[in-house]
Amino acid sequence: MDIEDLATDEKIKYVQDTLFVVSGKWKLPILIAISQGSERFRDIQRSVPPITTRVLSKELKDLEQNKLVRRTVYDTSPVVVEYTVSPYCKSLKPLVDEMIKWGVNHRKKVTES
Amino acid sequence: MDIEDLATDEKIKYVQDTLFVVSGKWKLPILIAISQGSERFRDIQRSVPPITTRVLSKELKDLEQNKLVRRTVYDTSPVVVEYTVSPYCKSLKPLVDEMIKWGVNHRKKVTES
Repeated sequence: MDIEDLATDEKIKYVQDTLFVVSGKWKLPILIAISQGSERFRDIQRSVPPITTRVLSKELKDLEQNKLVRRTVYDTSPVVVEYTVSPYCKSLKPLVDEMIKWGVNHRKKVTES
Repeated sequence: MDIEDLATDEKIKYVQDTLFVVSGKWKLPILIAISQGSERFRDIQRSVPPITTRVLSKELKDLEQNKLVRRTVYDTSPVVVEYTVSPYCKSLKPLVDEMIKWGVNHRKKVTES
């Protein structure tokens, strides 16, 4: 499908759908941290400052419900809980890459003016 | 610059910068509506349902401060106020296109399961 063929209201609707899933201060940073190897709660928390325990816990639950994160509990002693990104989460990569690029450019823009 | 060379914490920082500007339910939909030809307040409001007058007014002010939207007042009778996107706003297009694509794909994903 060519997105240029979409009507304005359709474009807006799809952007709103996407924003509903990835918007907010934390969700994408958490997904980046997990995908880059932070699999334990404390590791994720350290990688995404300054998120609180309470907020990280809530966000991980949301991401699990949206099928972007998988939570695995290992029946060891003590119990180990690991978070990994789902295969579906990888579909966000082109979007996240564009966000990084825009962020780099925006910082240049802001500092030069 | 190759974004793959960035460290995880830098990637997260740039994504957070970008989210700070474009996050939330309304900013990108408003920018899309304006860039597609809705230049008057009421036209924008109609294009981005169900935004309230109060919220649209606040969001337009934020977007103007971030240099993404220009507000022009024509000294006619009655006074005409027009909103247009800035040249800088156009730098968001690749990001918005990725959001539309992801939204289209996400809808398919959600409806098929």
